[in-house]
Amino acid sequence: MNSAIDWYAQGMTEIKALYINCSIKYDNKTSHTQKLINRSAGILRSQGVNTETIHALDYDIAFGMEKDLSKVSDRKDEWPLIQEKIMEADILVLGTPIWLGVKASVATLVIERMYAYSGDRNNKGQYLYYGKTAGCIITGNEDGAKACAMDMLYAMSHIGYAVPPQADCAWLGEAGPGPSYSDTQWGDETLEAPAGYNNNFTNRNTTIMSWNLMHMANLLKQNNGFPSEGNVADNWQDFANATQQDPDERIRSIAAPI
Amino acid sequence: MNSAIDWYAQGMTEIKALYINCSIKYDNKTSHTQKLINRSAGILRSQGVNTETIHALDYDIAFGMEKDLSKVSDRKDEWPLIQEKIMEADILVLGTPIWLGVKASVATLVIERMYAYSGDRNNKGQYLYYGKTAGCIITGNEDGAKACAMDMLYAMSHIGYAVPPQADCAWLGEAGPGPSYSDTQWGDETLEAPAGYNNNFTNRNTTIMSWNLMHMANLLKQNNGFPSEGNVADNWQDFANATQQDPDERIRSIAAPI
Amino acid sequence: MNSAIDWYAQGMTEIKALYINCSIKYDNKTSHTQKLINRSAGILRSQGVNTETIHALDYDIAFGMEKDLSKVSDRKDEWPLIQEKIMEADILVLGTPIWLGVKASVATLVIERMYAYSGDRNNKGQYLYYGKTAGCIITGNEDGAKACAMDMLYAMSHIGYAVPPQADCAWLGEAGPGPSYSDTQWGDETLEAPAGYNNNFTNRNTTIMSWNLMHMANLLKQNNGFPSEGNVADNWQDFANATQQDPDERIRSIAAPI
Amino acid sequence: MNSAIDWYAQGMTEIKALYINCSIKYDNKTSHTQKLINRSAGILRSQGVNTETIHALDYDIAFGMEKDLSKVSDRKDEWPLIQEKIMEADILVLGTPIWLGVKASVATLVIERMYAYSGDRNNKGQYLYYGKTAGCIITGNEDGAKACAMDMLYAMSHIGYAVPPQADCAWLGEAGPGPSYSDTQWGDETLEAPAGYNNNFTNRNTTIMSWNLMHMANLLKQNNGFPSEGNVADNWQDFANATQQDPDERIRSIAAPI
Repeated sequence: MNSAIDWYAQGMTEIKALYINCSIKYDNKTSHTQKLINRSAGILRSQGVNTETIHALDYDIAFGMEKDLSKVSDRKDEWPLIQEKIMEADILVLGTPIWLGVKASVATLVIERMYAYSGDRNNKGQYLYYGKTAGCIITGNEDGAKACAMDMLYAMSHIGYAVPPQADCAWLGEAGPGPSYSDTQWGDETLEAPAGYNNNFTNRNTTIMSWNLMHMANLLKQNNGFPSEGNVADNWQDFANATQQDPDERIRSIAAPI
Repeated sequence: MNSAIDWYAQGMTEIKALYINCSIKYDNKTSHTQKLINRSAGILRSQGVNTETIHALDYDIAFGMEKDLSKVSDRKDEWPLIQEKIMEADILVLGTPIWLGVKASVATLVIERMYAYSGDRNNKGQYLYYGKTAGCIITGNEDGAKACAMDMLYAMSHIGYAVPPQADCAWLGEAGPGPSYSDTQWGDETLEAPAGYNNNFTNRNTTIMSWNLMHMANLLKQNNGFPSEGNVADNWQDFANATQQDPDERIRSIAAPI
Repeated sequence: MNSAIDWYAQGMTEIKALYINCSIKYDNKTSHTQKLINRSAGILRSQGVNTETIHALDYDIAFGMEKDLSKVSDRKDEWPLIQEKIMEADILVLGTPIWLGVKASVATLVIERMYAYSGDRNNKGQYLYYGKTAGCIITGNEDGAKACAMDMLYAMSHIGYAVPPQADCAWLGEAGPGPSYSDTQWGDETLEAPAGYNNNFTNRNTTIMSWNLMHMANLLKQNNGFPSEGNVADNWQDFANATQQDPDERIRSIAAPI
Repeated sequence: MNSAIDWYAQGMTEIKALYINCSIKYDNKTSHTQKLINRSAGILRSQGVNTETIHALDYDIAFGMEKDLSKVSDRKDEWPLIQEKIMEADILVLGTPIWLGVKASVATLVIERMYAYSGDRNNKGQYLYYGKTAGCIITGNEDGAKACAMDMLYAMSHIGYAVPPQADCAWLGEAGPGPSYSDTQWGDETLEAPAGYNNNFTNRNTTIMSWNLMHMANLLKQNNGFPSEGNVADNWQDFANATQQDPDERIRSIAAPI
């Protein structure tokens, strides 16, 4: 196992990861989601991955399906600073709190702004985000983690990110109002430990996600991303493609010879 | 490019793909979704991938979060026959029609039955479906493809599948009642071509998905799946993990030395 | 308040409610969801509402977008027996467990079969389910209640049901594996009380939903359902309608005189 | 029918409706969603309903689960101006474009800000939004209307709004890039009519939704909202409630005597 670990450790130092906290609180220090982000980011950092976390609301982000609103309007727009970080990173992890069972407005905004660049191409002619790896982190005091994860992972997958197995992690409390992740007090009650910190399931899934993000990023890095046969919007018709296949064929199960 | 193609063609012949049509029609011949499945399956077959399609309702599948209902009840249950095919396949593609904006009952049933095995392990100790690649195909006469895709891709990702970029494809008509994919007649009107067959967007996305499924499966095949560091439920605590990381750390952006 | 209560009690005895348990277990006695259904049904029954609960899997329900599969195929199909109960009921409550964050296959099947009748009309020419009231009940050991509720309530609303405020209730445990609603044992641990029974939030929301279903049904019963101006598919063009309105008008905020 | 119409017309003049366009474009004049909003608003206005439309991004809305960010931070926050309009209105209709299959960031933001008030009470002690009626309007060039509708209608229902039958309407084009609602040009092609304007399905559903919103609001207005038995968070335990019902009872179908 040692040589594998060495190989991995070596690969890891070439990887960059970006966590974006999409909390709706302007002050990062009050964000519960940040606490779980820290645990995942810590794992990547321990393996030598260059890991940065930003708080989306530290930036003045404009609304709109544009790359830079400041160029097409008189709005201030600091999104391009974030986009630059996204483009440099091999791994992107979006963190969001849950409100009413769905992802936060800030997470939606971040995804919209990324989407505005999705028509651009990487150096192989593939969509811009090809070759990158996505994950997500969610906290709430009850219910909604899977709904948020499927929404965010799908969005990132749709614009080019690869999604490794179990690419989400979350903490949620029991149904009803209750402490948020990391709270040490709930009403008059002082909790024995910060809420969720000792949740074995959350810790396990956070660990699994973090390692899978590294494994996928490493795999893609060492293979120079995805091959470009058949997945380039400008030349898909030069490869075996849908228009050549007979949709009306009866089901058959034997592979045809090449 | 030729040598790459050769390398690929060689890898492809070792890959198996399974398409499961989750139509709610018992007769496969009347399924519109099957037509789009055929186009994707044809692409894989053209590259030498061993490709099989099954129609879920050809099997007598029982309900329940069990591996084999026939062993725990007096119900007939042919699910294990499908599960065997799933386990042999490197690529799994679920096809579903849309009803009321969401995936079909049969698709939900198929996912539930797969989920019942998700506690099992592969030969590395990872969850059973690790190392496999997932995609999905959706048709409807209007609206709901992304909702179905995010639901199905998430479910497969959650139990261990890897999801390559743009792993879904679909055809939908304009808002309102209208022809289904492949229909040549709508009311009194004879259509110029079968509905959706010439849709450039659907054909392009079907092609891109099909190739990305092959690329991801090939990548995983040639790297012997995902490494098992940190993603095995039984020994995640032996690796750098969440419990060791300080959740209360302030955000910092510089990678720590290893 | 007494006369209001009397008036209500009187109205209630004319109301019928149907609960359908969409558990994926064939044996109702083992369903956790049934326990929470019982609490809601008990409230309605205590007010004189004629309340019936059925277990969907007690019936042999075929797949397909048909009213009665036995008439168009050689399949056995007991759905029409359920449909009859649905048509007699003023209130319909669907109960579902959560699997992988979404509603159960049986819930999807039940909704599909109801949908097959949605082109039929009630005695005012409105869609069949107009004048009826919908709610839903969800249990899981963690996460997914709101996702299930939005899916099921939307489906019922879309085919004609009215949805009162807070028309869903649920119980969920903390993130991770754990007891299901009503479990008294979890692994080696004996619980102080059946899981969820004393959850104040679940009990409150179950109560609020149950009363709101009665209030809405009563309101509709006493007003003979919704008026039929503008909502009948066959004559909407005889009323003020969308085609007559100028979509390109600038926003203005003052009501025009009639 | 005339007297019913008179009765209705009379009721309508007492009703106020608010449409909030949650477009991510700062300039309302460029919003496609606004066009479909206009058609629905025109129907309500034609019946004497006091109808106002606002463009959310005309206001400077802060992020956060607070009633007024300007009171708890140094942020500017014009949300309270919108909240005041929401509280005055009997009907609230949220309009949103679709991006990546889900509702816009601005729609999420609007719902979050409404949610921050949801702990307040109306004059009966019910949650603040009880007695009000909700609907939604969605446009996109393809796919996602039902996903947006279920998300937005659920959110509004969860905080107290009543949802009448078929409370959503939408326009979507065929799968793939294409004109947006109201576009008269697509690439080099000049369209015969603005996209979607003649879509019979969209016009019908817009009409049905608009009338159902009026019917529900009228019904609630004339009945003084929902009765407060059993649905007030502060005294639900004074009415027949969940804690009094036996969850372990076997299913039975006969109504008990009062």
